[in-house]
Amino acid sequence: MLTLGIDTSAGFLSVAVAQDRQLLREILRHSGQKHSETLLTVIDELLGSCGFAITQIDRICVTHGPGSFTGLRIGAATAKGIAMARDIPCAGVSTLAAMAAAASELEGTLCCAMDARRLQVYNAQFKTTLAPSTEENLTRLCDDQAIAIAELEQQLPTDSPVWFCGDGAQLCYDNMTKRPHWQLAPEPVRVQRAWGAILAARDEDYICPTQLQLNYLRPSQAERERAEKVTTL
Amino acid sequence: MLTLGIDTSAGFLSVAVAQDRQLLREILRHSGQKHSETLLTVIDELLGSCGFAITQIDRICVTHGPGSFTGLRIGAATAKGIAMARDIPCAGVSTLAAMAAAASELEGTLCCAMDARRLQVYNAQFKTTLAPSTEENLTRLCDDQAIAIAELEQQLPTDSPVWFCGDGAQLCYDNMTKRPHWQLAPEPVRVQRAWGAILAARDEDYICPTQLQLNYLRPSQAERERAEKVTTL
Repeated sequence: MLTLGIDTSAGFLSVAVAQDRQLLREILRHSGQKHSETLLTVIDELLGSCGFAITQIDRICVTHGPGSFTGLRIGAATAKGIAMARDIPCAGVSTLAAMAAAASELEGTLCCAMDARRLQVYNAQFKTTLAPSTEENLTRLCDDQAIAIAELEQQLPTDSPVWFCGDGAQLCYDNMTKRPHWQLAPEPVRVQRAWGAILAARDEDYICPTQLQLNYLRPSQAERERAEKVTTL
Repeated sequence: MLTLGIDTSAGFLSVAVAQDRQLLREILRHSGQKHSETLLTVIDELLGSCGFAITQIDRICVTHGPGSFTGLRIGAATAKGIAMARDIPCAGVSTLAAMAAAASELEGTLCCAMDARRLQVYNAQFKTTLAPSTEENLTRLCDDQAIAIAELEQQLPTDSPVWFCGDGAQLCYDNMTKRPHWQLAPEPVRVQRAWGAILAARDEDYICPTQLQLNYLRPSQAERERAEKVTTL
């Protein structure tokens, strides 16, 4: 079972290909928010470097949010287009769950955070247990949320390890009280990655591509502007 | 030769399928700017209604701008995804040229216009000639431009027929001097449509999907904000 993973939720663009639960190759590239121009080329490069053709891919997994609205739309539209043309299933997974899945070897609480501007972050927290007997070592502690950093700080345990992951990790760390148990996740597992998305998707998440929806967690700027217009009429 | 056409440059979403130069079916739907959620479903519906599978499509044509940045990105990403998965070529055509191609039975000057806010429009002008002996009856008079309506008014001929097309047609018409030769194009050919995109694409426009680029005519809001930051530093 060959799975293609795509993450375009932030400034980095990441694509990965996995055979069952084994990562074969991953490309992580800063595309300067030119995802719409570079995504297809990078997928081409990824598959070419492994000797695969796109026709060999069995399913596609993409981060469905939260993240950059534009980035998410490009990732999902591309994934849906490929999946539709090939008649293969598609999964959308939380960007925050993808981050956690890629960082699950860290023991403690994973505080996954993406910068949502104005000292707010998109956040979810997960508990990891390193007991080798259990296959699932990641427990979600809360739903994905858009939250002020100050408020998030109150939700975190002060007496056990907390790892900050995601492109909002540094922002959280810098704006919270320094505590001995709290630290930034190591660089390689700190940002959202396509490999994490593949790990986070369960078999039952793979659906018909027409059904794949995005989850912004917040109304888009256009929707906010429309809502403001209605309110001020 | 089966061609799939896609236009998501504005509030309406339009898809069409053509056999050679013959329109087989077109769907035009107001999707309330939910293009990322509805596009794939509408393509599915279009092909299903003609009894075609996506695997029978030989090439894809999409409007590459100007228009809504988000809309254009969704249309292009979907087209590129399908084309890549199927290993078929893709063409990007000017949204304004697509409009003109769909309205080319009107004789005179076609003034194609899309609302670009603040009394500006994205515009191009075309001359039509109804001489049946020539196959190509559409001549482009200027490059695609972002222009103030007042300035555009000065470019139009006052002594011969001018037809206003596009979702900026009414805006132009309402904000220009009323002249006997100037009128709104009839409703069915006034807005940009996927069928127009198929008509506007020449064989040499079909390229490898990784090479398809968008043409916004203007920097995006994100790019403007970055540029302003740099200027004010």
